[in-house]
Amino acid sequence: MNATNNGGLAAACRKLGLAAKAAAGDLASLDTEIKNAWLLRSAERLIASTDEIITANRADLAAAPGYGLTAAAIDRLRLDADRIEGIAAGIRQIAALPDPIGAVLEGFTRPGGLQIVKRRVPLGVVFFIYESRPNVTADAAAICVKSGNAVILRGGKEALHSSLKLVELIQQVGQELGVPAGAVQLVPTTDREAVGHFLQMNDLIDVTIPRGGESLIRRVAAEAKMPVIKHFDGNCHVYVDESADLVMAIRVLVNAKCQRMGVCNACESLLVHREVASEFLPRAATALREQGIELRVDARAAASIPDGVPATEADFSAEFLGPILSIAVVDSLREACDHINRYGSHHTDAIITRCLRAADEFTQRVDSSAVMVNASTRFNDGGVFGLGAEIGISTDKFHARGPCGLKELTSYKYIVRGDGHIRT
Amino acid sequence: MNATNNGGLAAACRKLGLAAKAAAGDLASLDTEIKNAWLLRSAERLIASTDEIITANRADLAAAPGYGLTAAAIDRLRLDADRIEGIAAGIRQIAALPDPIGAVLEGFTRPGGLQIVKRRVPLGVVFFIYESRPNVTADAAAICVKSGNAVILRGGKEALHSSLKLVELIQQVGQELGVPAGAVQLVPTTDREAVGHFLQMNDLIDVTIPRGGESLIRRVAAEAKMPVIKHFDGNCHVYVDESADLVMAIRVLVNAKCQRMGVCNACESLLVHREVASEFLPRAATALREQGIELRVDARAAASIPDGVPATEADFSAEFLGPILSIAVVDSLREACDHINRYGSHHTDAIITRCLRAADEFTQRVDSSAVMVNASTRFNDGGVFGLGAEIGISTDKFHARGPCGLKELTSYKYIVRGDGHIRT
Repeated sequence: MNATNNGGLAAACRKLGLAAKAAAGDLASLDTEIKNAWLLRSAERLIASTDEIITANRADLAAAPGYGLTAAAIDRLRLDADRIEGIAAGIRQIAALPDPIGAVLEGFTRPGGLQIVKRRVPLGVVFFIYESRPNVTADAAAICVKSGNAVILRGGKEALHSSLKLVELIQQVGQELGVPAGAVQLVPTTDREAVGHFLQMNDLIDVTIPRGGESLIRRVAAEAKMPVIKHFDGNCHVYVDESADLVMAIRVLVNAKCQRMGVCNACESLLVHREVASEFLPRAATALREQGIELRVDARAAASIPDGVPATEADFSAEFLGPILSIAVVDSLREACDHINRYGSHHTDAIITRCLRAADEFTQRVDSSAVMVNASTRFNDGGVFGLGAEIGISTDKFHARGPCGLKELTSYKYIVRGDGHIRT
Repeated sequence: MNATNNGGLAAACRKLGLAAKAAAGDLASLDTEIKNAWLLRSAERLIASTDEIITANRADLAAAPGYGLTAAAIDRLRLDADRIEGIAAGIRQIAALPDPIGAVLEGFTRPGGLQIVKRRVPLGVVFFIYESRPNVTADAAAICVKSGNAVILRGGKEALHSSLKLVELIQQVGQELGVPAGAVQLVPTTDREAVGHFLQMNDLIDVTIPRGGESLIRRVAAEAKMPVIKHFDGNCHVYVDESADLVMAIRVLVNAKCQRMGVCNACESLLVHREVASEFLPRAATALREQGIELRVDARAAASIPDGVPATEADFSAEFLGPILSIAVVDSLREACDHINRYGSHHTDAIITRCLRAADEFTQRVDSSAVMVNASTRFNDGGVFGLGAEIGISTDKFHARGPCGLKELTSYKYIVRGDGHIRT
């Protein structure tokens, strides 16, 4: 690489990677008390620096219309004293979680006296790519600090100034405690090429976590030379079994679809057993339309919802993230499971049933990170599960599945003690 | 893809992938008794089919000189009644291991009454690429069956006929028990292009495990569109601390280097603290040379081993897999750790010491799958650790690290039970 601009960018990215790698060695054995002190003091420092943060945030707000942000998106970007208190509270919650590092996962003594323990260790260096809200910057930094990982943060351009300020303050506290600055870093440029440089550094970065739209995640999955924890949006289903309590089914369905539509664990597709379709669908249609939901129905659902929009096959694969629901009638629970495994995204799927056997078969057959019985899909969330803060919800099966909190950012190491033991 | 030969190969590979994916759904919920019956009866069937297997094996032996196999390699390829008994015994050992599938890893009730369990499930479809010995075919099939995964086996061309026969017999037993044939399949061609087709099938294959030379693993890691459990050969170290029992150090070092040289947990590099270098190195040199080991020494080690071969920097990164050892003198334990993390392969590294603090620092700082204290590197092995049979030793930190047995071929799923719970 020569000294052109691009060579300069590559070198700058590599420098961040090297600093992170160097810091990771120290972070791995950093005492829990120091990690907690770092987080708690950072929370204080953020509150004490409210004015500075708001000033930085103003630069982002000023640039926002130029990025074509909607009023709602600009509102999400805005920081005030309350929101900075909220960010600090999030950091304090992570400080309060148990330290996963150093835990002995298994341990045994082998015939001959060899003592083996399997001990939890950090992954090393995390490269986290995410979208615009500045609170994610602080949350992700805190999750990585607590799990003993160095992190390279690549936030959206919309929040660059706010994120830079937050990271500067967190780094400041870290340095006061003797933690190397490479532990938490933000990529200080919004150049898209920078991401490509980091995705090549499998000698320095242990895992990449992209959080954002599907095209970002596909790009990262295709380009990255290191493991990726993928967080695809969810195409989640509610299946209403023939034995369902139909009142419960409507309540859960409306919650799963409507409580928050733009999120990955919102329901996008409804499957109904043929035995209850004619009774359930008209009532469901009324309840959903009261919430402004457009119904896209297959031919058999159309018999009960004649004024529904005819669904295409693509509608059953779609993640609408908005006020649209696809609806199909199925002949059996098995057909519902097959439909979900085929069209779904292995994120979160629910059955409404009174039948124990149906619940068991559904939870076994549906190949998703979380399978709900008589509960809303909206519950698939690290906080709800009691795992604490999460850095994403994995739609992979490898390494981590579902909500990714502190433990999901760890690996392990075997430590073997002998007394001069040799193998014969 | 059209109907040319290559199109035909791609379609044939895809057919195997589709059959495996379809079988994986059934395997995931297959009763432990059926899995065990399948394995135990397969072991019987192999012994009962000794003549058939030996006939198939003769075709491989006849072709072996054409592949340029050494006499030793041809011997490893040869099957006789004893070796077939050994293969059957290996399958029986896997049948005797506890079934990892269905285990509840965690479970809790959340405020509000939502009941959550985290249950172990198979990964799905495993694509296993390996080298020539036919016993690996049976072992890998058995490990995947027991862990509820469908497997596509891609063995070396040298053992094709033997492996085809073994898989045919195992499939036969599976079909008698009602298990779909897609559960265990062998790629019936030795066309190198076939591997490339499978590595693209991330919609059907959940994980690829390559076991073989470094170039194979690098190729697979670069091409695969799905996760890969990498099993690189190890550049393992023995570090002799200033407080070491030098008699123990020589015993462990000679074992680590010489007990079996061509394996990934054999020692390739010796580091010695400067305080004991002049006392230890001449004695170590004598012991190692008695075993025919060539010593490649850095400048400071040369002071104690004047007739050693001067080591290059490349020697410290090398995996000799043979009678060569690189040797360096270090100023401190910290320098030893830094050297190991820089030149090593994060596989297995040992310290010989009497000092508790040195043991603790070494085990914390060295970033390897197994860190040994006063024990030979040769102990990093699934069988030795009591994990049962292994399909490889992962040199990654992501998902699985170190020996990969049944549990390492699994994921998990959250199962959530409510009573009409909705999120508010």
